[in-house]
Amino acid sequence: MRVGEWCYELAKELWPIPRSLTGPGVRQTLERLRRELPLLNIKSVPTGYQAFDWTVPDEWCAKSAFIETPGGKRIADFSENNLHLMGYSEPVDATLDLDELQEHLYSLPDEPDAIPYVTSYYRRRWGFCLTDKARKALSNGKYRVHIDSTLEPGHLNYADIIIPGESEDEIFLSTYICHPSMANNELSGPVVTAAIVRWLQSKKRKYTYRIAFVPETIGSLVYLSKNLPHLKARVVAGFNITCIGDDRDYSYLPSRRENSIADRIAVHVLTHQAPAFTRYTWLDRGSDERQYCAPGVDLPMASIMRSKYGEYPEYHTSKDTLGGVVTASGLEGGYLALERAITVLEEDFVPRVRVLGEPQLGKRGLYPNVSIRGSTDHVRVMMNMISYCDGERSLFEIAEKIGRPFWELRQAIEPLVAADLISVT
Amino acid sequence: MRVGEWCYELAKELWPIPRSLTGPGVRQTLERLRRELPLLNIKSVPTGYQAFDWTVPDEWCAKSAFIETPGGKRIADFSENNLHLMGYSEPVDATLDLDELQEHLYSLPDEPDAIPYVTSYYRRRWGFCLTDKARKALSNGKYRVHIDSTLEPGHLNYADIIIPGESEDEIFLSTYICHPSMANNELSGPVVTAAIVRWLQSKKRKYTYRIAFVPETIGSLVYLSKNLPHLKARVVAGFNITCIGDDRDYSYLPSRRENSIADRIAVHVLTHQAPAFTRYTWLDRGSDERQYCAPGVDLPMASIMRSKYGEYPEYHTSKDTLGGVVTASGLEGGYLALERAITVLEEDFVPRVRVLGEPQLGKRGLYPNVSIRGSTDHVRVMMNMISYCDGERSLFEIAEKIGRPFWELRQAIEPLVAADLISVT
Amino acid sequence: MRVGEWCYELAKELWPIPRSLTGPGVRQTLERLRRELPLLNIKSVPTGYQAFDWTVPDEWCAKSAFIETPGGKRIADFSENNLHLMGYSEPVDATLDLDELQEHLYSLPDEPDAIPYVTSYYRRRWGFCLTDKARKALSNGKYRVHIDSTLEPGHLNYADIIIPGESEDEIFLSTYICHPSMANNELSGPVVTAAIVRWLQSKKRKYTYRIAFVPETIGSLVYLSKNLPHLKARVVAGFNITCIGDDRDYSYLPSRRENSIADRIAVHVLTHQAPAFTRYTWLDRGSDERQYCAPGVDLPMASIMRSKYGEYPEYHTSKDTLGGVVTASGLEGGYLALERAITVLEEDFVPRVRVLGEPQLGKRGLYPNVSIRGSTDHVRVMMNMISYCDGERSLFEIAEKIGRPFWELRQAIEPLVAADLISVT
Repeated sequence: MRVGEWCYELAKELWPIPRSLTGPGVRQTLERLRRELPLLNIKSVPTGYQAFDWTVPDEWCAKSAFIETPGGKRIADFSENNLHLMGYSEPVDATLDLDELQEHLYSLPDEPDAIPYVTSYYRRRWGFCLTDKARKALSNGKYRVHIDSTLEPGHLNYADIIIPGESEDEIFLSTYICHPSMANNELSGPVVTAAIVRWLQSKKRKYTYRIAFVPETIGSLVYLSKNLPHLKARVVAGFNITCIGDDRDYSYLPSRRENSIADRIAVHVLTHQAPAFTRYTWLDRGSDERQYCAPGVDLPMASIMRSKYGEYPEYHTSKDTLGGVVTASGLEGGYLALERAITVLEEDFVPRVRVLGEPQLGKRGLYPNVSIRGSTDHVRVMMNMISYCDGERSLFEIAEKIGRPFWELRQAIEPLVAADLISVT
Repeated sequence: MRVGEWCYELAKELWPIPRSLTGPGVRQTLERLRRELPLLNIKSVPTGYQAFDWTVPDEWCAKSAFIETPGGKRIADFSENNLHLMGYSEPVDATLDLDELQEHLYSLPDEPDAIPYVTSYYRRRWGFCLTDKARKALSNGKYRVHIDSTLEPGHLNYADIIIPGESEDEIFLSTYICHPSMANNELSGPVVTAAIVRWLQSKKRKYTYRIAFVPETIGSLVYLSKNLPHLKARVVAGFNITCIGDDRDYSYLPSRRENSIADRIAVHVLTHQAPAFTRYTWLDRGSDERQYCAPGVDLPMASIMRSKYGEYPEYHTSKDTLGGVVTASGLEGGYLALERAITVLEEDFVPRVRVLGEPQLGKRGLYPNVSIRGSTDHVRVMMNMISYCDGERSLFEIAEKIGRPFWELRQAIEPLVAADLISVT
Repeated sequence: MRVGEWCYELAKELWPIPRSLTGPGVRQTLERLRRELPLLNIKSVPTGYQAFDWTVPDEWCAKSAFIETPGGKRIADFSENNLHLMGYSEPVDATLDLDELQEHLYSLPDEPDAIPYVTSYYRRRWGFCLTDKARKALSNGKYRVHIDSTLEPGHLNYADIIIPGESEDEIFLSTYICHPSMANNELSGPVVTAAIVRWLQSKKRKYTYRIAFVPETIGSLVYLSKNLPHLKARVVAGFNITCIGDDRDYSYLPSRRENSIADRIAVHVLTHQAPAFTRYTWLDRGSDERQYCAPGVDLPMASIMRSKYGEYPEYHTSKDTLGGVVTASGLEGGYLALERAITVLEEDFVPRVRVLGEPQLGKRGLYPNVSIRGSTDHVRVMMNMISYCDGERSLFEIAEKIGRPFWELRQAIEPLVAADLISVT
């Protein structure tokens, strides 16, 4: 099975779980992920835990929720689509006029067939989300609203996994698991991250890898509050993994420092894998880089995405579906970009040519014997690469200099190293 | 009264005074300014004073001047328009044929209704300036030319004013007072400068301010010759104030070093106040930056202008009038740009956010309660600003980084400082 | 005689000599050059000499070569055009069918009237080059092929000339002498270089000049192997001189470091002499900069060319002729660019204006008396130049800064130096 399909199948299983910042949905999600990643450490902090400027809120558990129309029909039923219930809705059981009800309804006039995703984590209220079409069809009369939820002291859950490498220096990956049934934002993130973890576990590693699955914002702040000195000492590069499953765009959003090695590699990979990719700036940020790259934190963490949050029409609605937005090939492409970025980190080195002047490749059989179209291009790339193997630049820097992908040079340099023409510093 | 109107009224009073490099016109102008700025120190150096490579010339005093036509009509009468007499004309009383007279006449065939402004400071001659239309109407015959002027050892006058601040470091402003009746070049300069002086005197000041009113070129050289070591030790930024009164363009001309703090602030202010402003280069220079930024002098002095000298059709002609070229709103806009530039110097500081991770603005009531159009933009600007309050950048640098005007951020940061979220370094 | 004509005449004499990497053609060429440049030192290394990664091959001497058609006609006769014989062809005397012969023939279907230039230095074979038109006209039958050549241990010849200057620091020029009868690539190189040598010998020199005439690739490697420590210690700038004789393009190819003084001067000269010149990159390289700028060698050596090798249709064919491609004016233009580049190296200095503020040029008679069109431009250039004579920039850097050619400023600064206004550091 191709990795994109594997991701897609896992996303299908995670789809119906009603995730939020806290509560059983997060736990179920992490437990399902642990079946794929047995080393996953699931952790928690209690309600009231102080993560820098933020406080972990009560745990929210929603059991059922619906509106009953004057005609006795159940609509906006949480059991049908978990977006119908505004996240963190307090419990209610009441009968209201339509006018009163309207103040608790959320819909999108511009997207009349989509249920919007709405939350109210830090102010107590209740609400229902529905399509604008359904809302417009409501007639006057008495409506019963029913929300069976609890908001009580409990826990916030998150998880991480540490995969050791030759070095204690770390590559840090983070993704989030707090959104209900939406595909690109967010299920693409945890499933592609899971696939990356499986690949990392299967290979020799120069770096140690730390992968976090956290609720967005408060979860990353909790994670930082628990690990900041360690992360600042060890992390050499990181990627925030989100919105990485559709087939439309590729995109990049920088770390606050903008030119960390993670940034430069992200741009390099996308430049060659998807030259038309969109370059966002720090001012366009909106995910956990807001925490990971905040002043005083400043982890070197970039985002490699497909269509960015906020930038595609189905974002934060019921239309962000598996199939409708996210595809196996979309996930595969996002996975590949991340795998390539990590491969640069793993396999870069500083090559030095061991002869003065150009080496004579002919006598070593390193010239192609048959001159078919393209083979001279290959020789040209090889000679250009050698011309920069001066012991001052890394192979990644050479790739940037000559405008070829790292993965092409990594392959081209192998026979030269084997022929002892290039020394590995 | 708005400041632009105040400037305009003052310019009207200064208009008729027959200024030149030296002589009673300069003194009358400085005395009139001293009525507004009582602390103004009026100074002088004698004819023959050596200012670096230049020598102060004889003092010129023109009492009357005119041409009498063969028909007995007085034309080019100095008492009607002080541009009619070439600056520094020597005395003459003679009768000439039209052919002989022509060698002493100056007009502009391309601007047939304008009297040109012509001077001959360093070579003795005499001349009259008139419209090309009037010149073409001259018929053959005997012309009497009469110039009652003196060119004798005397003085060159200039003035300065020192306004102390908390620091002995100085901001240096210079403008010139040697042109006869022309409005943008030059009356806009001294009147806007006078308004800036009044504003500075009315406020708390971080810096000490030094403001010079000097005849152009020789006057700035004299000022430098008297103050160079002090200026080089103390001046942190400066502006040469000229051509700052019309309503058409805004423009910037750099210091020789190009990227002094004065340059960067000038560009910042104009970028936000008048995005279509014209950026000139050092090669376009033509005013006292030629002296203030010369090799070995090198004060960090930029020019913020409206329509630059040499770049508008009425330049150096009788058409550069109050009303025709200079307006109250033009002066107001120029004043505002200078005030804003000085405000950046005065109010910049290095902010540092006092929490790790993003602060939670909601619990402090720093989020707008009502989400009207534009309010989310304001929150976005505030969050972007906070994201750079890392104790490494000044607020001005943050404004540059996020592409917002300093004055917007200065206002937006106030409640954050008050809430103790941002510390002031 | 203009220098372009002198070059053209010398090229005509060198034209028929059958040059290759080694052999009598190289020696004849060097001896002919020595008649113009008596100080030329002709040198040699034996077959088998190891130059870094390369080995000097056997010496090749071709005496005669032709194909006899079934009809008894001699074609592809070496005595008619020395391109007919593949360089380094081994001897053969045999009779073949057309099918067998075809495997030894080289022609260009896209350029049916051109004889291609083909060599096989490092693999033994034989071959004939002919026009595609002639090849297509061959009918079936028995062909006699005759090549009277030797491939035996001998020597590789090269030469250099050292022209001492005030300093032991060196300017290094290199050109190659291993191509048979082709004009732009390569005869333009040695003839323009010879003209430059004659000019250098005729003038006062700040630098010592080292000029090498070498077979391409193996010759430059031999030269480096003999002189590397000296070259690395002494060479401050260098130019590889090739393809410098046609009238079409001007072009520049950088050193590997890209911004050496040789690079910056080359770009400066071409920017002003031929603003539409082509800028190649290091990735477009193809001549001896591959050796001179290789990692660990890294001489500061740029190429100033007319139409670059590989970039004009007649390249490496019999159509690259004197008259057809190379002209006296083309050679003159290439020579002039090189002479100007060397003049920058020779005549640059750090000027400092000796007065504070702008100097008063009028009292020194340095303002033009008559204001004809262009004269104010000249004053403007002079004032701009003076404004940067701060003792920090060289005249070349000032020329770059104000966008004028070095040679214009060099002339403009003379009277200022003579008037003691500018000091020469």
